[in-house]
Amino acid sequence: MLAAIRRPTFDDLNLSTGKRARLHRLMYEHGPGNGTLMLLPIDQGLEHGPIDFFDNPDALDTDWVLRLAVEGKFSGIAYHIGLAEKYHKNYAGKVPLLLKINGKTNVPSDDNSFSPLTSSVEDAVRLGADAVGYTLYVGSPAQDRDLAQANDVRRECEKYGMPLVVWAYPRGSAIKAKGGQDSIYAVDYAARVATEIGADIIKLNVPHYEADKAAASPKPYNTLALSEEEGLRKVVKSAGRSLVLVSGGSKISDDDTLHKARLAMECGCVGLIFGRNMWQRNWDDAIGMSNRMHEVMKGYGQ
Amino acid sequence: MLAAIRRPTFDDLNLSTGKRARLHRLMYEHGPGNGTLMLLPIDQGLEHGPIDFFDNPDALDTDWVLRLAVEGKFSGIAYHIGLAEKYHKNYAGKVPLLLKINGKTNVPSDDNSFSPLTSSVEDAVRLGADAVGYTLYVGSPAQDRDLAQANDVRRECEKYGMPLVVWAYPRGSAIKAKGGQDSIYAVDYAARVATEIGADIIKLNVPHYEADKAAASPKPYNTLALSEEEGLRKVVKSAGRSLVLVSGGSKISDDDTLHKARLAMECGCVGLIFGRNMWQRNWDDAIGMSNRMHEVMKGYGQ
Amino acid sequence: MLAAIRRPTFDDLNLSTGKRARLHRLMYEHGPGNGTLMLLPIDQGLEHGPIDFFDNPDALDTDWVLRLAVEGKFSGIAYHIGLAEKYHKNYAGKVPLLLKINGKTNVPSDDNSFSPLTSSVEDAVRLGADAVGYTLYVGSPAQDRDLAQANDVRRECEKYGMPLVVWAYPRGSAIKAKGGQDSIYAVDYAARVATEIGADIIKLNVPHYEADKAAASPKPYNTLALSEEEGLRKVVKSAGRSLVLVSGGSKISDDDTLHKARLAMECGCVGLIFGRNMWQRNWDDAIGMSNRMHEVMKGYGQ
Amino acid sequence: MLAAIRRPTFDDLNLSTGKRARLHRLMYEHGPGNGTLMLLPIDQGLEHGPIDFFDNPDALDTDWVLRLAVEGKFSGIAYHIGLAEKYHKNYAGKVPLLLKINGKTNVPSDDNSFSPLTSSVEDAVRLGADAVGYTLYVGSPAQDRDLAQANDVRRECEKYGMPLVVWAYPRGSAIKAKGGQDSIYAVDYAARVATEIGADIIKLNVPHYEADKAAASPKPYNTLALSEEEGLRKVVKSAGRSLVLVSGGSKISDDDTLHKARLAMECGCVGLIFGRNMWQRNWDDAIGMSNRMHEVMKGYGQ
Amino acid sequence: MLAAIRRPTFDDLNLSTGKRARLHRLMYEHGPGNGTLMLLPIDQGLEHGPIDFFDNPDALDTDWVLRLAVEGKFSGIAYHIGLAEKYHKNYAGKVPLLLKINGKTNVPSDDNSFSPLTSSVEDAVRLGADAVGYTLYVGSPAQDRDLAQANDVRRECEKYGMPLVVWAYPRGSAIKAKGGQDSIYAVDYAARVATEIGADIIKLNVPHYEADKAAASPKPYNTLALSEEEGLRKVVKSAGRSLVLVSGGSKISDDDTLHKARLAMECGCVGLIFGRNMWQRNWDDAIGMSNRMHEVMKGYGQ
Repeated sequence: MLAAIRRPTFDDLNLSTGKRARLHRLMYEHGPGNGTLMLLPIDQGLEHGPIDFFDNPDALDTDWVLRLAVEGKFSGIAYHIGLAEKYHKNYAGKVPLLLKINGKTNVPSDDNSFSPLTSSVEDAVRLGADAVGYTLYVGSPAQDRDLAQANDVRRECEKYGMPLVVWAYPRGSAIKAKGGQDSIYAVDYAARVATEIGADIIKLNVPHYEADKAAASPKPYNTLALSEEEGLRKVVKSAGRSLVLVSGGSKISDDDTLHKARLAMECGCVGLIFGRNMWQRNWDDAIGMSNRMHEVMKGYGQ
Repeated sequence: MLAAIRRPTFDDLNLSTGKRARLHRLMYEHGPGNGTLMLLPIDQGLEHGPIDFFDNPDALDTDWVLRLAVEGKFSGIAYHIGLAEKYHKNYAGKVPLLLKINGKTNVPSDDNSFSPLTSSVEDAVRLGADAVGYTLYVGSPAQDRDLAQANDVRRECEKYGMPLVVWAYPRGSAIKAKGGQDSIYAVDYAARVATEIGADIIKLNVPHYEADKAAASPKPYNTLALSEEEGLRKVVKSAGRSLVLVSGGSKISDDDTLHKARLAMECGCVGLIFGRNMWQRNWDDAIGMSNRMHEVMKGYGQ
Repeated sequence: MLAAIRRPTFDDLNLSTGKRARLHRLMYEHGPGNGTLMLLPIDQGLEHGPIDFFDNPDALDTDWVLRLAVEGKFSGIAYHIGLAEKYHKNYAGKVPLLLKINGKTNVPSDDNSFSPLTSSVEDAVRLGADAVGYTLYVGSPAQDRDLAQANDVRRECEKYGMPLVVWAYPRGSAIKAKGGQDSIYAVDYAARVATEIGADIIKLNVPHYEADKAAASPKPYNTLALSEEEGLRKVVKSAGRSLVLVSGGSKISDDDTLHKARLAMECGCVGLIFGRNMWQRNWDDAIGMSNRMHEVMKGYGQ
Repeated sequence: MLAAIRRPTFDDLNLSTGKRARLHRLMYEHGPGNGTLMLLPIDQGLEHGPIDFFDNPDALDTDWVLRLAVEGKFSGIAYHIGLAEKYHKNYAGKVPLLLKINGKTNVPSDDNSFSPLTSSVEDAVRLGADAVGYTLYVGSPAQDRDLAQANDVRRECEKYGMPLVVWAYPRGSAIKAKGGQDSIYAVDYAARVATEIGADIIKLNVPHYEADKAAASPKPYNTLALSEEEGLRKVVKSAGRSLVLVSGGSKISDDDTLHKARLAMECGCVGLIFGRNMWQRNWDDAIGMSNRMHEVMKGYGQ
Repeated sequence: MLAAIRRPTFDDLNLSTGKRARLHRLMYEHGPGNGTLMLLPIDQGLEHGPIDFFDNPDALDTDWVLRLAVEGKFSGIAYHIGLAEKYHKNYAGKVPLLLKINGKTNVPSDDNSFSPLTSSVEDAVRLGADAVGYTLYVGSPAQDRDLAQANDVRRECEKYGMPLVVWAYPRGSAIKAKGGQDSIYAVDYAARVATEIGADIIKLNVPHYEADKAAASPKPYNTLALSEEEGLRKVVKSAGRSLVLVSGGSKISDDDTLHKARLAMECGCVGLIFGRNMWQRNWDDAIGMSNRMHEVMKGYGQ
């Protein structure tokens, strides 16, 4: 491994007082509490449907997931307005809320991916949330509407002092044609776009080099055969002064999950946002895994 | 039959005072009055045209349907602004109004289904309504506009304390290609989307397994051969803390209608929203059927 | 002929004070003055172009048409803002104004018919109008925008106490494919949609059964061989408590014109809105015809 | 020549005080000053690009064109906001400003012609303009947006007392298919649409009969072989009480230019709006031509 | 070389007090300080992705670019909101901010190029910016939305006294078909459009004559074989009283860079906006080059 990277500080992010107070709650008052983040997302019901709950039907009960968030000492839970309104009341103060404010189903083609708003920054304020989450489909032919909508959200965040977490996802027909959504080209570009438009925190997938797919990417990405770690360091750098979270993606083995957690922290990420890798486990396994992730995070306080 | 399921309570729904007062009227002050719902919808004139009134031309006179709502002791009647403005005056206080606030004709193709607003939450407040109804076409390529419009409606509902009933209908070309609008995959996804975006109550069709159609659904739905009851229990669970209403759909036999009513209640639904199965009968049959449905509902007070 | 039908009363329509005052002027203070309506539309210059004025070039001068409206004792004149602003001044108080607030040319294909606003309900208030007219293209693939725009207009009408007259026209590619715009299926559906969305008065064409075209309509319309009178009675019934006006359409013979007038009144319509059948005649013929129509209307006071 | 036609008066136009004051400046305080108009348009840089300035490069300097407007005693100059902001300051009070408030380039296909706003009626007020100009592409498939935008502009004009000059241009794929933009059918329809939507003044091209093109127009235009003068009189009549300006179009000979000027005035137009026919000449020729046009206008005071 | 051209003055631009104060800071208080401009753009991360930082990875750190802006004595730095919020704080007062307020990725096809807003003129005011930058894709089939959005931006600029710099880029399928984005036809048209819609300063590429491409341009551009200098003088003239900046484009040799700088100033441009040609060099080269550019600018004070 290379030397760990210094992450951007609150001063680097030039945060307003409100953003600073809220991010402080997420980073220093909950979860590992040492400036790292362990977020638990549960927006897959909208994005993928109940399909994701077949492996662990307990997770279909959002209350179970909230108990996991509390007992697993997560920094926050990320979900949509419908769940936040109906389930968060009993957990207010116990686990911070990151309100996911846009989304879509995966039923129609994703060639022109775009996620409309399902709630607003004002809803987040009303519910006492400490951040909002916004999905930006970088490179989608619908970027016209997406960047404009993201701009509206950013301005509301600025107005209310609400930290903005951007799910920076390369997506759409042109991304498919240029190496795919996990290519280094695509993730690197997504990281940069998110920071250019004002994300405080960026959620990214670990980029993945596949020679045959990369061949379709623009030079020099078409031959940029980076290792997983080199790739992640590169995109973290492209994210500039925005903090980076690594997505968990679909469920992987325990070892792979922990490897991904360590990799993220070594590469300068601020933390993890693992959903299916957490709540697709049964209770004991999920608690066990969160404990092991806390162990990892201890090494990266800042 | 399996054991009956406990339905979400007002506390579970975390209702505002206004929503609580209005839902109380629907659930405890009218209809069965024991926390169940028997709603009478009459929006088919817009959705299907006068075609639905051929079997019982009396129902073309909305006043006849309102008399049925009152004498059949329904929990509420659901219709559009034009009928509500011109017919509800004489029934105000006698049967609660659920204002259906969006809709469309079925003349053009439904590949990109979308229902624009025909009235507003403010109209509902003005007319003394106790809920609004919103049709969401889950999985339609027009979901961009639909989710955004639903978000606007939800915020207005929050603002005015108006309960939001979502007609969660899988629809559009992609749904057709993945097993159809009555498939377990489609109804299950629809139930979940509606709860994620903030429905207080969700209107669903009973999902139906057909092997050849299901084969087009994503795994594991493609082989999920659930019985009618298992299917409905599943989607009720996916609806989380939102209450579920079962649609009547097109007219069926008396036995089938009562079977569907019992099925709904056994599976944890809060009630029924049967239109054509009520007003496509003549007066005596309709009153007889509503009485028999009241008998069924008695067993599910809560 | 069957027995004449009782028309909806002001109480049936549940009119606000403003709407009642304005409709009273149209129905009891001008024209026949007995609760029937004889309206003179002159919006064809926008809808069809100057082509409609070739038969009687005098009508190209809107002032001529206004004189006809006054001397022919019409209940009101319907036109667009441009003509209303420049010609109505001298006739204010002499003939009521129905401001037609949306329209389009017929130059491009009407497969996706939609009429944008050319003026507003506020303009109607400012000009002292007693009603507004709105064209709704029922069944058009553009119904998304049309229903939404109609909703905005309805709310403005509610706000200002302005009666809403809906030109309910079946139109667009799907209507063509299902039997055409004059089919009983299409006109019946249009009547119902207009009442569901809140029309006070609905302008309809007399539906027409043609076996070969009807064959493309949904059951049972495909074999519903109604006479002209049966067809019109049917659509008047589908219009519920909205009042119905019969359109004149393109110019027909004197006998046919009077036949249509009597037919309309026998079938329960509130009146006539004949344009080309009036102003495509020379002055004496036009005045003569309006007198004969007044004779017809006398029998239908209410 | 037939007898000259009486033009609509300020009373005919039923002008508000603000519109009257501003039109008075254009018609009686500048230019010929006898109720006729000689306008100088210089919006071709946006509509056609710098191509139009090759014949007389001096005109690329807008200041040169303004000097021509002053020394040629024009009634007003018509241009876009960018030029008005940077060049009109030194000419304020010397030549009235007609702010052209929408436009487009001719680079993409004009099948769906539409001109978005480049400025607003409020800008016109701020700059002391005496009128605004709006291009309406009559018959374009984009008429939905165009008529709606024109309606917004008209309402602003009403609000601020700003005269509305409509460039009524038939355009788009359907116009091409029905005889072309200069056909009598097309220009006649355009004149009528502009007056129906509330133009105070309408800018038209002289319609032109070409047998082979006209054959594609609807009856009776397909065989309406009118002379230039008959055609122009017809469209002036279709414009009703709106005043008509004749466009100059691309550069023509001196004799043809003067012929067109006389033709316009004989046919009842209020004046001329010749751009390329003026500023594509060198200074002396341009001044000479404007003097000769003034001579023509003398005969048509009113 | 021909004689240098006098550039438009503040009086020529008819600037408001606010625009004058801000442009004064850019032109006389920073950079060369003699009325010329040397701007450093760093918006390529959004427009092209991190690809542009491969040649000099230091530039991926925006702080490095800001240090270059300060030590290279640039007149201002141009970037998007995300970078401005997080990096400009420490450089406020040291180097003026030009906030680039719209942009897009280059992932999807550019046939219908359009850049949505990523921030606003209000953000620029809040951040103490001295100008905003707006990309207008001249000739794109999306010009409808682009011109309308530019109009909104212009009005905000007028309201707040914020200078408007338009990146006037010919783009889209029709431009490709008519000779390409660097053709004299395209750049000349772009320059004119930008000034017509109210740009204070216009950023242009040096037009380039290629016989085979030009053949597709409209007459007389199809045979207008201008030298680089003649071409640039032509487009500067078409820009009228708007000031012109020359883009650097992709990296070229030192000699070519200096040649382009001199060419720009000789042809009447107000300055340079070279990004990749500056920050794709290492520190010493970049500082050296900026010093040499300052030498060039000395000769063009005004």
